[in-house]
Amino acid sequence: MIDLKKHIETHLDFPKPGILFYDISSLMVNAEIWQETINQFSTLVKKYNPEVLAGIESRGFIFASTIGYKLGCNVVMIRKKGKLPGKTISHTYELEYGKDCLEIQKRDTLKNKKTVLIDDLLATGGTADTAIKLLEKIEVNILAFACLIELTNLKGRNKITVKTDSLIAFDE
Amino acid sequence: MIDLKKHIETHLDFPKPGILFYDISSLMVNAEIWQETINQFSTLVKKYNPEVLAGIESRGFIFASTIGYKLGCNVVMIRKKGKLPGKTISHTYELEYGKDCLEIQKRDTLKNKKTVLIDDLLATGGTADTAIKLLEKIEVNILAFACLIELTNLKGRNKITVKTDSLIAFDE
Repeated sequence: MIDLKKHIETHLDFPKPGILFYDISSLMVNAEIWQETINQFSTLVKKYNPEVLAGIESRGFIFASTIGYKLGCNVVMIRKKGKLPGKTISHTYELEYGKDCLEIQKRDTLKNKKTVLIDDLLATGGTADTAIKLLEKIEVNILAFACLIELTNLKGRNKITVKTDSLIAFDE
Repeated sequence: MIDLKKHIETHLDFPKPGILFYDISSLMVNAEIWQETINQFSTLVKKYNPEVLAGIESRGFIFASTIGYKLGCNVVMIRKKGKLPGKTISHTYELEYGKDCLEIQKRDTLKNKKTVLIDDLLATGGTADTAIKLLEKIEVNILAFACLIELTNLKGRNKITVKTDSLIAFDE
C-alpha cells in the first residue's frame, strides 16, 4: 500500500507565520496518488456504512463528493453563510479573532439518515464541532467525523462529540 | 438515460434579486442521481482524453476531483487569492462592481499536459476566461472548458477562447 504521508507537501508559515500547512494539492496533482488517496479514505468511511456524506467547504467537498460517488452515498454541502439557496439552518462560532458562520440546507429526506461528516483536516476542531451542531439541527443520525489528516498535537479530537477517525496523523 | 435537468432545483432571487439560481445540491443529495451526474459528465470530459482536470473554486472542485478520480486524471485547483501555498500565479479580473483574483500553483510537471478546465456553471464567462488565462500562464495544453450547466442566453461561450462544452443547457 502506498504511504500517502510521503506525498503530502508541507509549507511553513502559510497562511500565516508559525503555521505548518499540509497541502493536499500534492495528492491531487498526481493521478495515481489521487486514486490511491480516495481508495484508502473510502475504505475508512465505508466501515460506517453511511447513507449520507456531509462535506465542509471547500476542501471537504472534494472528499465528500468523490467518496460519495464511489460508495453510492447522498452528498450534502456545509458552506459559509449566504452561499446555499432555499431553506437553511446556520450556526455561528467563535474564532481566535472574531466569528464565523456555517450553513446547511434543511431537507426532510435527510432526517434520521446515517451520516458521516467529512473534511480534509482536523486541527483545533472548531469547524468540525460547528458542522456537527448543524447536522444535529437537521436531525440526521451522525455516525462519525472522518478526516484525511489529523494534527494530533492540537488535540482537536477532544472537542468533537462524535466518533472521530483519520487516515493520516501528524504529531509535529 | 436519466434526464438530469428535471433534478436541478431552481431558486429565484438568489443570491440577489433577479437571479435564477440553479442548485446542484439537488443532484448531490440523491445518491443515484449523483452517480448518474458524474457518469454523464465524465463521458463528456473523456472524449478529450485529458491528462489534467483543473477545477474552479469551489463547486468546480466537486466535479474536477470526482471525474478526475473516475478517469484517472491529475487534478488541480484554481482558487481565490491567498488560499494556495507554494509558488503561485495569479490573474485579476474586473467584475460588475470591483475586482476579483484567481490563483493556481505553478508546477513544472504540468507543463504541456493535455488539460480540461471544469466548472459547474457557465454564466457570463468571466471566471472561466480568467481561469483559462491562468492555465495559459502555467503553459498547459488547454483542450477545452467543460461545464455541467450552461445558461445560453447569457452568451458566456462567446467570451471563452477555447472549445466550450456543456452537459445541460438552460435558455431562460
